[in-house]
Amino acid sequence: MSPSASTPEGGSEASVSLREVGEFHLIDRVTTGRSQPDTTLLGPGDDSAVVAAPDGRVVACTDVLVEGVHFRLDWSSPDQVGRKAAAANLADVAAMGAVPTSLLVGLACPSTTPAAQLEELADGMWAEAATVGAGLVGGDLTSGPVIVVTVTALGSLQGREAVLRSGARPGDRVAVCGRLGWSAAGLAVLGRGFRSPAALVNAHRVPEPPYSAGPAAADAGATAMIDVSDGLLADLAHVARASGVALRLRSRAFTVPARLSEIGSALGLDPLRWMLTGGEDHALAATFPADTPLPAEWAEIGVVEAVDDAGPVVTVDGRPYDGEAGWVHFAKF
Amino acid sequence: MSPSASTPEGGSEASVSLREVGEFHLIDRVTTGRSQPDTTLLGPGDDSAVVAAPDGRVVACTDVLVEGVHFRLDWSSPDQVGRKAAAANLADVAAMGAVPTSLLVGLACPSTTPAAQLEELADGMWAEAATVGAGLVGGDLTSGPVIVVTVTALGSLQGREAVLRSGARPGDRVAVCGRLGWSAAGLAVLGRGFRSPAALVNAHRVPEPPYSAGPAAADAGATAMIDVSDGLLADLAHVARASGVALRLRSRAFTVPARLSEIGSALGLDPLRWMLTGGEDHALAATFPADTPLPAEWAEIGVVEAVDDAGPVVTVDGRPYDGEAGWVHFAKF
Repeated sequence: MSPSASTPEGGSEASVSLREVGEFHLIDRVTTGRSQPDTTLLGPGDDSAVVAAPDGRVVACTDVLVEGVHFRLDWSSPDQVGRKAAAANLADVAAMGAVPTSLLVGLACPSTTPAAQLEELADGMWAEAATVGAGLVGGDLTSGPVIVVTVTALGSLQGREAVLRSGARPGDRVAVCGRLGWSAAGLAVLGRGFRSPAALVNAHRVPEPPYSAGPAAADAGATAMIDVSDGLLADLAHVARASGVALRLRSRAFTVPARLSEIGSALGLDPLRWMLTGGEDHALAATFPADTPLPAEWAEIGVVEAVDDAGPVVTVDGRPYDGEAGWVHFAKF
Repeated sequence: MSPSASTPEGGSEASVSLREVGEFHLIDRVTTGRSQPDTTLLGPGDDSAVVAAPDGRVVACTDVLVEGVHFRLDWSSPDQVGRKAAAANLADVAAMGAVPTSLLVGLACPSTTPAAQLEELADGMWAEAATVGAGLVGGDLTSGPVIVVTVTALGSLQGREAVLRSGARPGDRVAVCGRLGWSAAGLAVLGRGFRSPAALVNAHRVPEPPYSAGPAAADAGATAMIDVSDGLLADLAHVARASGVALRLRSRAFTVPARLSEIGSALGLDPLRWMLTGGEDHALAATFPADTPLPAEWAEIGVVEAVDDAGPVVTVDGRPYDGEAGWVHFAKF
């Protein structure tokens, strides 16, 4: 759906608020007639949903997106916000080596919010969930001063051991899968008032996490894994601390995509900095034993070493990277 | 914990904001060293939590509480807000006939929020979860203009069939378990500037859902069940519609507690109205086959009949109740 779809012109429908449509009617619109995966044993409409957890365990995580903090509706369509909110959580499930099964969404918004915006936001969540075969199984809609979207994702490890942040061992290789720096480059473009290149701007609006790479990495023997949400260095620092190791990255291992080089040159910014510190692309970073072939799409970027006096650090070419190490809107726990 | 604990006086600690403490430090404080139930296979600190789902299914629901809409920090302590946010979700799990296993919390708040308030809010969630043997397994902390607490609860049906809203059949009995009208009476008291009777005011601040009555009702053969969050009549209307039946309540089946009678007289309000339409006590309402003995603590309040021309309605003494049928802050799905 194109960004302009969020602001249809001339249609009376666009100006109808949530208050006028009514909350139950809106919920009907965004839940009725949707196709649910087999894992949805009971979907929306009761006190709780019931979701299959075939191996007797369920993976669960929660992420909050706040209007004006994590997204702007003049930069992203509601559909894109919905996709992004879903993607952030689905990627956290993938980062455990699991396959997402379902989403629940808590939505606070002003009662004057156009109903069409909320429908489009829900459409975005459904669309993103569908890319991994997950369903939207429940939620809560309430009034609040700004739009706050809280998504919970559930997933199935399908019998795998969960891949934690704490399993990296000296001698392992560090690898990544998925885009790095695209969202940050897109944000830089938007922040300067531009709307193109579309590929970068859209990468900021809707990440494209490599969901299936998570379970594939687990199957290949990954020893640690994390979703790159705050920036590669910031997130690998969590792995270093949790594992008690040093992660040594090599800058020449990073291939800077032409799109990032071009816009970096245009803006006078270093594209490698976006790749190392930019958040919200939801790439996956993992460590693998030295003798294990990396699964498809994964690229080696460094090695794991025992800690020295500097402690559990992440270095680039032997030194701490002298840039901002990612960004956080508070933190995940 | 007493309400005054939320505003400690004279301590410099009380004025330290989230921004000053730092989000990671705060998350450490509210997660480290907590005791987790056996169902928590992996607690906070990774991309996702892993929770046991012994019978291969997981019950899941989400509720959002917004400062100024669902709670006021001059009326409730952060501890009480935390308990209430947890309780609303835990009751939704119980209403399926399930036992809660874990909570995840998404919290948006201004960065100027006192860290002590957030710790106390988390303490309240932990305390409420502990009453049912559940743990807080994950979450997300982010900045936002007001406090928005989104709680997701997970639960285990322990092999039971989920009790839906749609299973009520003509001939069944309607029964309730737990307090009705206490929260509404407490809210009426607070709204008039009073802080007592404490029993009612505290009932508004922290509900006491009859959690174990949910699985007990399922075991006893309940045909339909719902959490009374918006008001008994409003919530039973969901059961009537979902089941395609009429629910006929008898006003004389309700025993008005002395505390409600007394404050009703003092304020010139009908206490039965609180019991029929007041929300947020999180009692459970259910239907049982006529020949099934009700489990302990459940009280019969009416019968299920086939629909007539009036459709799937809820009546009191044969008529639609001529009061407001509960209140909604938008709706659950």
